[in-house]
Amino acid sequence: MTASTVSPVTTSPAAIRRRIRSGAFQGHTGGQAPGYLQGNLAILPEPYASDFLRFCVANPKPCPLLGVGEPGNPHLVGLGEDLDIRTDVPRYRIFRDGELVDTVSDLCHVWRDDLVAFAIGCSFSFEDALLRAGIRVPHIAAGRNVPMYATHLETNACGPFAGPMVVSMRAFKPRDAIRAMVLSERQPLAHGAPLHFGDPAAIGIADIMTPDFGDPPVMADGEVPVFWACGVTPQLAIRRARPEFAITHDPGHMLITDRLAEQGA
Amino acid sequence: MTASTVSPVTTSPAAIRRRIRSGAFQGHTGGQAPGYLQGNLAILPEPYASDFLRFCVANPKPCPLLGVGEPGNPHLVGLGEDLDIRTDVPRYRIFRDGELVDTVSDLCHVWRDDLVAFAIGCSFSFEDALLRAGIRVPHIAAGRNVPMYATHLETNACGPFAGPMVVSMRAFKPRDAIRAMVLSERQPLAHGAPLHFGDPAAIGIADIMTPDFGDPPVMADGEVPVFWACGVTPQLAIRRARPEFAITHDPGHMLITDRLAEQGA
Repeated sequence: MTASTVSPVTTSPAAIRRRIRSGAFQGHTGGQAPGYLQGNLAILPEPYASDFLRFCVANPKPCPLLGVGEPGNPHLVGLGEDLDIRTDVPRYRIFRDGELVDTVSDLCHVWRDDLVAFAIGCSFSFEDALLRAGIRVPHIAAGRNVPMYATHLETNACGPFAGPMVVSMRAFKPRDAIRAMVLSERQPLAHGAPLHFGDPAAIGIADIMTPDFGDPPVMADGEVPVFWACGVTPQLAIRRARPEFAITHDPGHMLITDRLAEQGA
Repeated sequence: MTASTVSPVTTSPAAIRRRIRSGAFQGHTGGQAPGYLQGNLAILPEPYASDFLRFCVANPKPCPLLGVGEPGNPHLVGLGEDLDIRTDVPRYRIFRDGELVDTVSDLCHVWRDDLVAFAIGCSFSFEDALLRAGIRVPHIAAGRNVPMYATHLETNACGPFAGPMVVSMRAFKPRDAIRAMVLSERQPLAHGAPLHFGDPAAIGIADIMTPDFGDPPVMADGEVPVFWACGVTPQLAIRRARPEFAITHDPGHMLITDRLAEQGA
């Protein structure tokens, strides 16, 4: 069964990648190709690749690996036959020595034979599952980005890659929070079950209204904050490692893969 | 494969039922035959049976049905070939017009041709799963009964059967609470995922330190109370319906079945 038999051709992962590749689609990928895993992107020169790979494996909640490329190869086995990591993400960030130096829509001019691409699961597919279950996801309902926080939880360090666990937060009434925990646990490649709920200070968040990344939270009376491991964790680890060259996706502009979220594990 | 191939003969459900039947085992059944579903017991005269059956089906979280007998038949299909509901529970309570009139270890002298037996899932098997996962269950660690509370959540009424949802409470640090929610959800016949966590007042519990049934809770700093639907719910509904005759198990003295908890649904 191909994707086109389960959803209109225009929303299949391959069709959206084609539109991204041609420049016809340049926006956020949230809500596109529902049911398919989307990925955070990290691209590093080969000397950093094995430490980063070990870092992802040692920190599977924030860094669930969807795919790892061969040096210089822009394809990622199993994520889409046509997939070209140089063109199939709507927007990329380029870092030199840990500093953001450019934001681009195509990597062809900067691609090198020593670059290794990593696709890391993101929360969009579990948010799809919550919405399908009739659970209101506050930041989506408000048209905002999810609030994200650096915590005092430490990742497991590997070589130069280390640093704080970053979490994303969604607030729910307890009944929906329980359902959200159960549903997200079924998607280990989309960060799985949450790490924490309730008291933000218990994981080192001083002020929940002031996230470190994303937009301020939307929280109503009686709602409990629930915290999931977040794909910004490896991005922080990369910035902290200060590799001479690195590429990531621009937040919200993810890699759309052919991998079904619920066949994820 | 028989039960005796996966665990010592003395801890198989059939072996424990034999010991109960003979009077050699008279105690609480918690921790016996781990991995097998245990059941709350309700026995009602036939005129009440169809309303009570509908009540269980309409309230699957507090009343997950494991088995329903035919009128006058002390066997329950699928729960154990040898099983005799008149002798295989360590202690029974006998009610007349909704009032407790006797506690007995054998129903042979009160059994009637019009009695219908209901076995309803209980929390023991999901507690086994928590313990196997290395999660400390506070009341078990303290050697107490679980605290239980009548809430302001209403069951779905069927005929004379109605009344408040009763919940049991176990407190955990958030990380273990998340795991407990996920693990319990895998056992829908043992009440499944919890109904609520956090603020007791939100479900009508005025004082968490004063449960309506069971022992006072054991709660440490930073632990969050988590509330599961409880098999006392149908017992309250039966007392409220005031049938001329009814039998239940005595709390903690459950029916041990041959049904595996994790093939439960």
